[in-house]
Amino acid sequence: MIIDSHAHVVMPPQSLKFMSELVGGRGNPSVDPKIPDEAIHKVATEVVKIMDSVGTDLQFISPRPYLQMHSVKPAKVSEIWARHCNDVIARVVACYPDRFRGVAGLPQFMHESPAERCVAELERCVEQLGFVGCLINPDPTEGSELPPPGLGDPFWHPLYAAMERLQVPGLIHSAGSCTPRESYTLKFINEESIAVISLIDSDTFQKFPNLKIVVAHAGGAIPYQMGRFRSWSVRRGEKVSFDEQLRKLYFDTCNYSQDSIELLLKVAGVKNVLFGTEKPGTGSARDPISGRDYDDMKPVIENIGWLSADDRADIFDCNCRRVYPRAFRNYTDPS
Amino acid sequence: MIIDSHAHVVMPPQSLKFMSELVGGRGNPSVDPKIPDEAIHKVATEVVKIMDSVGTDLQFISPRPYLQMHSVKPAKVSEIWARHCNDVIARVVACYPDRFRGVAGLPQFMHESPAERCVAELERCVEQLGFVGCLINPDPTEGSELPPPGLGDPFWHPLYAAMERLQVPGLIHSAGSCTPRESYTLKFINEESIAVISLIDSDTFQKFPNLKIVVAHAGGAIPYQMGRFRSWSVRRGEKVSFDEQLRKLYFDTCNYSQDSIELLLKVAGVKNVLFGTEKPGTGSARDPISGRDYDDMKPVIENIGWLSADDRADIFDCNCRRVYPRAFRNYTDPS
Amino acid sequence: MIIDSHAHVVMPPQSLKFMSELVGGRGNPSVDPKIPDEAIHKVATEVVKIMDSVGTDLQFISPRPYLQMHSVKPAKVSEIWARHCNDVIARVVACYPDRFRGVAGLPQFMHESPAERCVAELERCVEQLGFVGCLINPDPTEGSELPPPGLGDPFWHPLYAAMERLQVPGLIHSAGSCTPRESYTLKFINEESIAVISLIDSDTFQKFPNLKIVVAHAGGAIPYQMGRFRSWSVRRGEKVSFDEQLRKLYFDTCNYSQDSIELLLKVAGVKNVLFGTEKPGTGSARDPISGRDYDDMKPVIENIGWLSADDRADIFDCNCRRVYPRAFRNYTDPS
Amino acid sequence: MIIDSHAHVVMPPQSLKFMSELVGGRGNPSVDPKIPDEAIHKVATEVVKIMDSVGTDLQFISPRPYLQMHSVKPAKVSEIWARHCNDVIARVVACYPDRFRGVAGLPQFMHESPAERCVAELERCVEQLGFVGCLINPDPTEGSELPPPGLGDPFWHPLYAAMERLQVPGLIHSAGSCTPRESYTLKFINEESIAVISLIDSDTFQKFPNLKIVVAHAGGAIPYQMGRFRSWSVRRGEKVSFDEQLRKLYFDTCNYSQDSIELLLKVAGVKNVLFGTEKPGTGSARDPISGRDYDDMKPVIENIGWLSADDRADIFDCNCRRVYPRAFRNYTDPS
Amino acid sequence: MIIDSHAHVVMPPQSLKFMSELVGGRGNPSVDPKIPDEAIHKVATEVVKIMDSVGTDLQFISPRPYLQMHSVKPAKVSEIWARHCNDVIARVVACYPDRFRGVAGLPQFMHESPAERCVAELERCVEQLGFVGCLINPDPTEGSELPPPGLGDPFWHPLYAAMERLQVPGLIHSAGSCTPRESYTLKFINEESIAVISLIDSDTFQKFPNLKIVVAHAGGAIPYQMGRFRSWSVRRGEKVSFDEQLRKLYFDTCNYSQDSIELLLKVAGVKNVLFGTEKPGTGSARDPISGRDYDDMKPVIENIGWLSADDRADIFDCNCRRVYPRAFRNYTDPS
Amino acid sequence: MIIDSHAHVVMPPQSLKFMSELVGGRGNPSVDPKIPDEAIHKVATEVVKIMDSVGTDLQFISPRPYLQMHSVKPAKVSEIWARHCNDVIARVVACYPDRFRGVAGLPQFMHESPAERCVAELERCVEQLGFVGCLINPDPTEGSELPPPGLGDPFWHPLYAAMERLQVPGLIHSAGSCTPRESYTLKFINEESIAVISLIDSDTFQKFPNLKIVVAHAGGAIPYQMGRFRSWSVRRGEKVSFDEQLRKLYFDTCNYSQDSIELLLKVAGVKNVLFGTEKPGTGSARDPISGRDYDDMKPVIENIGWLSADDRADIFDCNCRRVYPRAFRNYTDPS
Repeated sequence: MIIDSHAHVVMPPQSLKFMSELVGGRGNPSVDPKIPDEAIHKVATEVVKIMDSVGTDLQFISPRPYLQMHSVKPAKVSEIWARHCNDVIARVVACYPDRFRGVAGLPQFMHESPAERCVAELERCVEQLGFVGCLINPDPTEGSELPPPGLGDPFWHPLYAAMERLQVPGLIHSAGSCTPRESYTLKFINEESIAVISLIDSDTFQKFPNLKIVVAHAGGAIPYQMGRFRSWSVRRGEKVSFDEQLRKLYFDTCNYSQDSIELLLKVAGVKNVLFGTEKPGTGSARDPISGRDYDDMKPVIENIGWLSADDRADIFDCNCRRVYPRAFRNYTDPS
Repeated sequence: MIIDSHAHVVMPPQSLKFMSELVGGRGNPSVDPKIPDEAIHKVATEVVKIMDSVGTDLQFISPRPYLQMHSVKPAKVSEIWARHCNDVIARVVACYPDRFRGVAGLPQFMHESPAERCVAELERCVEQLGFVGCLINPDPTEGSELPPPGLGDPFWHPLYAAMERLQVPGLIHSAGSCTPRESYTLKFINEESIAVISLIDSDTFQKFPNLKIVVAHAGGAIPYQMGRFRSWSVRRGEKVSFDEQLRKLYFDTCNYSQDSIELLLKVAGVKNVLFGTEKPGTGSARDPISGRDYDDMKPVIENIGWLSADDRADIFDCNCRRVYPRAFRNYTDPS
Repeated sequence: MIIDSHAHVVMPPQSLKFMSELVGGRGNPSVDPKIPDEAIHKVATEVVKIMDSVGTDLQFISPRPYLQMHSVKPAKVSEIWARHCNDVIARVVACYPDRFRGVAGLPQFMHESPAERCVAELERCVEQLGFVGCLINPDPTEGSELPPPGLGDPFWHPLYAAMERLQVPGLIHSAGSCTPRESYTLKFINEESIAVISLIDSDTFQKFPNLKIVVAHAGGAIPYQMGRFRSWSVRRGEKVSFDEQLRKLYFDTCNYSQDSIELLLKVAGVKNVLFGTEKPGTGSARDPISGRDYDDMKPVIENIGWLSADDRADIFDCNCRRVYPRAFRNYTDPS
Repeated sequence: MIIDSHAHVVMPPQSLKFMSELVGGRGNPSVDPKIPDEAIHKVATEVVKIMDSVGTDLQFISPRPYLQMHSVKPAKVSEIWARHCNDVIARVVACYPDRFRGVAGLPQFMHESPAERCVAELERCVEQLGFVGCLINPDPTEGSELPPPGLGDPFWHPLYAAMERLQVPGLIHSAGSCTPRESYTLKFINEESIAVISLIDSDTFQKFPNLKIVVAHAGGAIPYQMGRFRSWSVRRGEKVSFDEQLRKLYFDTCNYSQDSIELLLKVAGVKNVLFGTEKPGTGSARDPISGRDYDDMKPVIENIGWLSADDRADIFDCNCRRVYPRAFRNYTDPS
Repeated sequence: MIIDSHAHVVMPPQSLKFMSELVGGRGNPSVDPKIPDEAIHKVATEVVKIMDSVGTDLQFISPRPYLQMHSVKPAKVSEIWARHCNDVIARVVACYPDRFRGVAGLPQFMHESPAERCVAELERCVEQLGFVGCLINPDPTEGSELPPPGLGDPFWHPLYAAMERLQVPGLIHSAGSCTPRESYTLKFINEESIAVISLIDSDTFQKFPNLKIVVAHAGGAIPYQMGRFRSWSVRRGEKVSFDEQLRKLYFDTCNYSQDSIELLLKVAGVKNVLFGTEKPGTGSARDPISGRDYDDMKPVIENIGWLSADDRADIFDCNCRRVYPRAFRNYTDPS
Repeated sequence: MIIDSHAHVVMPPQSLKFMSELVGGRGNPSVDPKIPDEAIHKVATEVVKIMDSVGTDLQFISPRPYLQMHSVKPAKVSEIWARHCNDVIARVVACYPDRFRGVAGLPQFMHESPAERCVAELERCVEQLGFVGCLINPDPTEGSELPPPGLGDPFWHPLYAAMERLQVPGLIHSAGSCTPRESYTLKFINEESIAVISLIDSDTFQKFPNLKIVVAHAGGAIPYQMGRFRSWSVRRGEKVSFDEQLRKLYFDTCNYSQDSIELLLKVAGVKNVLFGTEKPGTGSARDPISGRDYDDMKPVIENIGWLSADDRADIFDCNCRRVYPRAFRNYTDPS
């Protein structure tokens, strides 16, 4: 079974209209958005067609990250919008319950503690809407101010405690970017590098032994820059090698380059890599060399000669089941 | 002829999608928005139907004010978006050249001088797109920071100079609001009050004798609070009475209450009031008493018994022709 | 009986000298101000003469709002000064106990919670000095920074709880203004509009059913802009009409224009309007048309033909007795 | 002849009322202050009596420093107020031209360059009002923000150039203080210490060889802390000794302690010390030991046994004539 | 016995290398500094030689103040560095236990409460390392931002409570300076003046009757500017004279000028002055007049003719024993 | 010949002492640092030994990046320190002119334009000290504030113009880091990613066709994340492929992992990669697998089987000669 663990919901036009309203009126929306069932069904069906065209059986969908408005003041904007997006996702999942799982966006806001709003919304999503995971944005200021503490800091513990309690993993994925020199797509990468180092350099996993963290986009720069951190670790006299430390984390394949994914698999280990494509999204453009879209990643994985069949099953399916226990609880595999 | 001098374009869904992209990626849009002709034609036709239903012959359309994003950083967001909105307006006007005129939104940004970006875009709109006026937002910070100087300050002179040169009036109309205690619709009113006093208390009209300024929504609070400013003026020993000072400005009827419009007409004078409804918009809701929408304002004006036929013609038509000379230059009245 | 519910104390010169000291030395006054009895008696007698000249029987006096220094740092300045002003008021009331009632100024400061200093001073004024009400400044930053939350926000609950407990109403009245584009007299108006909408759009009166709020200066812009808020309310599908919501609040006649006061009386209802003049103050200038001072408001009310004798009694006297229960407790009406 | 080179004008009550107005309304005064001649004459006469009682022949009067409002925003406040104060001073001098000389307060503001407003006002005061010197406040933020560059920085050169051109010295004297831990009277001292070191450690007197600077209050801490700066100077290998450097500056005796004034005279030299008392002011309180007011300083100087008659003449009279050349130009000594 | 109560540790080069690391990497040091015993022994021995050369028997050593980095963000820098410096001091003391006592540097940081980090480090230093006092920096922002409240404010009470409990005095001594116009050596002086006034003008010693505070460098400007504060005190009608108030505090002789030290002794009293030299330090430069280093202060004290033998013993020895009770507890005087 | 194009000077202890002085006293150093010749010779000789031990013939040495203090206020700190470091480098080069070349550190400061101080120091270094290149720190705020514009912005043009004129390349290398979540070594990587994208996405190389930029540490994350940017480029419809765009830049091998260097060489091309090790530095720790230090990189390159002898010569030698034309001008290769 091919599980795409990293995809984002396609929003119906009415949602974008509501987003516009929030940007103009901030925490004062004049009307409640009513998204008709047909609009939801339409976007759900379009995505299912895309999935069929590339052989994806099941997709985990979360809010479109760069539209999360975590830095649009006041905090109520993020709160109203996260709730709206999660509700849309729940309805999309309900259209095709065999093809989708919901992953929650959190109402993060600037430097506000995740205890303020995020835990409650995560609980609502998991307990009431049946969601199986959540996104974590390491910099909810979206580059508009100095960032909050790194993911290894106690600042984030209220969220981790809730995630452990609810048995849902978190996908590290930043949101928009207000910094002209750093587009949101590049900020994704940098935030992932920062997240990896901050988590490894902390006692997070001792405090939360059942916490599961997936780092999107093949781990930012870290697998490529291993040497630097290996040496740093030796110089500091750390007892556990940097390579071993890295195995606390999971990564996804959403990187679009076979050479890089091979490097990732070598460094992070096959058991720690989940299939993920973000399709449709940034990678939905035709690669003039392969003739396929960049985010049509199944052939890329299948093309890595040194992977065994078991390895592939791990990447496409089994790793994901281990990381997302709630996703398959009441689920009968149709295949 | 019934001219609605104050209305805002209805944006096609593709524009709102592009707006979302700008909010997430700020000055770094990943794609150029392509709005198909049918989408433009569809929104244009819908508005024409609304106009027909209430007897409006001609509408002056500007960007939807609260969506102008004048405070979304960096400045490039406002610039890209203003250009996009004005282009959409030009295409809507082109669909029904007898029914619409274009009024430009300006790429204002926070405390930036209007000389930076606004003058160039106004020139483009008037000279290349045939627009006949522009919006002026007195607080482009949208309440997110302390505002720039008042409209009577030399800060605004570069814009006034361009308006005089191009022979286009400005409609005072603020944009969004980031202050939780002050919704954008209330900020419209407060900004208009501030604008009126700032302009009256300055040498603007001596410096720019041909400048024409219309204050939206019946002038904020000023006509209602005349007594306070009359007394202040007497205490200061000013030579010209406050009532006379007020006649430097124009106002529109976009207020939705007959009592108030009568007060306005008494204070500002019939010659200084233009018909305007903002339809469709905030007033597009059914008044349970009249049974008509609040922004169906033609019957309201017609219901004011003490207005003569000439007065009505002034309000519905002639005043507007005087204030917007470019609007009727090459225009053959179809009636 | 003619009760002027809205007037401000005239300060003796020694108080202004002390104010200067506070501006220079901030929280470090070098000397305690000693205001001699004669100085107090002199200003009290001057005001009684003014009252007699316009037929006012009783005046409610509070600190001169624009001199309250709510934004002069540090907070101790506001604290020392509010206490000084209230003490002066108490002494003025003591000079003519049949002609004055005390209304407290509060030591508000920037974004500081009213629980910090205001509640204690209000208690002192009511319990020890016999005051009957208080001023509330919705923006103690005086425009020098972004304002605190609106009056409908829980931020203000500690003050409301104290007001209910002490049975004193609050008069919404902003203080000075640091924004060059918005003089303090105009800021009064805008802050009142914001206050009205913030209170109506909240659960304040559910939480504090006995709270009484008077909005100064005829309610800012709201009665004039009713149409806009009526429509907004209908569009939001609110169950209680905006007009009905407005009746939660009281207003005073301190507006200086008969047309506007008539509009106010129609919209807010005769039972919700209190006579108030702010005399002597901004309106103390000769109206060249009427030949009377703008703030000589008794004839204005008497001139409104459609008011009944009962209506006038309500406006001049009875409404005030209902709103300010403490003002008449041990008071034997001399008339 | 006894010349008190350091005294401040006593403001009539109407000026303090106007100051209050400025604090509340900032750059928007509602009325122009009219100070009647009698009010001016009254304060002038009171001061002359004080001068007579302690044997002062001539006083140099400047604005009361701690009331200068150099940090009250916006800049227009400082500008309006400095002009008002200087006008009052000019009128006081005109009452008793043999007993007073005017020293200008400058409209300094926060971090604004002195070129903005100060030079023009200084020119007005010297050329039109006949003033003979000016105050310089090294920290016009009055402790409300980080200060502008030290007095040795080119930031101040526009002012120094004007002072040289107009042949007027500057008296270093800070204004109010917004820092709770540092009262204005203590800030005077600290700012003087900073000023001395900043000037000595710069090329100011090379660039402006005719510039004359008097440091108030016996030079802050510097004469007492000479050892520290002597050693610092030796460690840096400076060619000119610190003691010699100090002689570039003038000091006044406004210190109220004989021991300290003796220390000052030893360190700074008799030729560099001007008689000054600030009377009436901070020192106007009865010293329980001497039985005289602290600021009755003539006996203190006379009591220093080791001073010769010539020394005393220098301190009381001749040094001042050298530093303030304009003060005695058309002046016939009445003694 | 000659006790130099005010001296600072000389850091081995490895410590400065570590400091550099902290400045570059802030709270992220890559390696733990290992200072070899020889390095410690070397610097200790060098200082003992200096002590012998000027006749000092015992030195109290604290961290070099201007290197304390109290304003280098984040707080962890100050914390790591204070701990490092105190550890070095403890090792130096251990080299020559008869010649040194340790005085702790505290991990102060910007506006952070001393309860956060300082109390814990003070306890560690006193209870584990045998330290006998601590430094107190009144402005841990080092002039980079507005300072925290004055030393008389409850902000500092957690530290005072710990000092009382541990029976250790505090030496007022500011650290570095980020303000270009105020070098750290001058800031020392100004901060001391502010500290003296803030403490005197508070209830600190009523709340903490056993608290002992020593003001370095002869008390800043205060003893020299006594007149000003005496008069201020009389004007305020204070019951206890300013001179008497000053006796709550202790001062040291680290001033390098005999005239000034005589002034200090007169004002503060012989019982309140401790011998202190800061040697080696700022004063370690040859005085061309005396031919000795400025900080060779023993002859200076001995040269003051009017001091009795008992006075000298107080200054050199006994006062210090009273103020630092822990310093001599288990100490057998070798003389 | 083995040229290590990326190495940093080892500072003598006296330099670190001076750095400490600058941190405490900021722009007010009390003494000029005098570094004796032996100290310089000692560090130079130590590095030559290290070079010999790994077979490096020639090293390009620049200031230790993380010690550059680009964010330590005021700007004078950076200016004094950069000058000091460059002078030390020049003296080290002079010790062994056949083994070293100087690469300048620039006195960058926060958001200050490079025209302020950098160009002058670069000219001094190249024209007077014979330097051959410079470092460029894309974020001189060192993470303490929001960064200046990206390297593709005209903000940097004054520096690029000087580099072209002087014929020296720039090595992109950030400095320290004030952000607790992002250590300086990780910030190096992220800043390089941002630099690459900002430069590619600009007209820099059209405006400065002879500008040469080397990106340190194998280009941050970009070669690993190529897929994401390739797709982004196709979606934007760009004419030149992202791979081709990348060839405008040079990279060095300072990455410490053979797999990653192979990926870099494939993506960037052999002609665009320069040998660089940063030895001694972060990589100077023993790799437990290879048994060699991580920064002993010559064997790593030699171990890449698919490189031809010419390829290796390019990487070790020829590419560097092309990029650094000044480095070999008057240089006679000793091999």
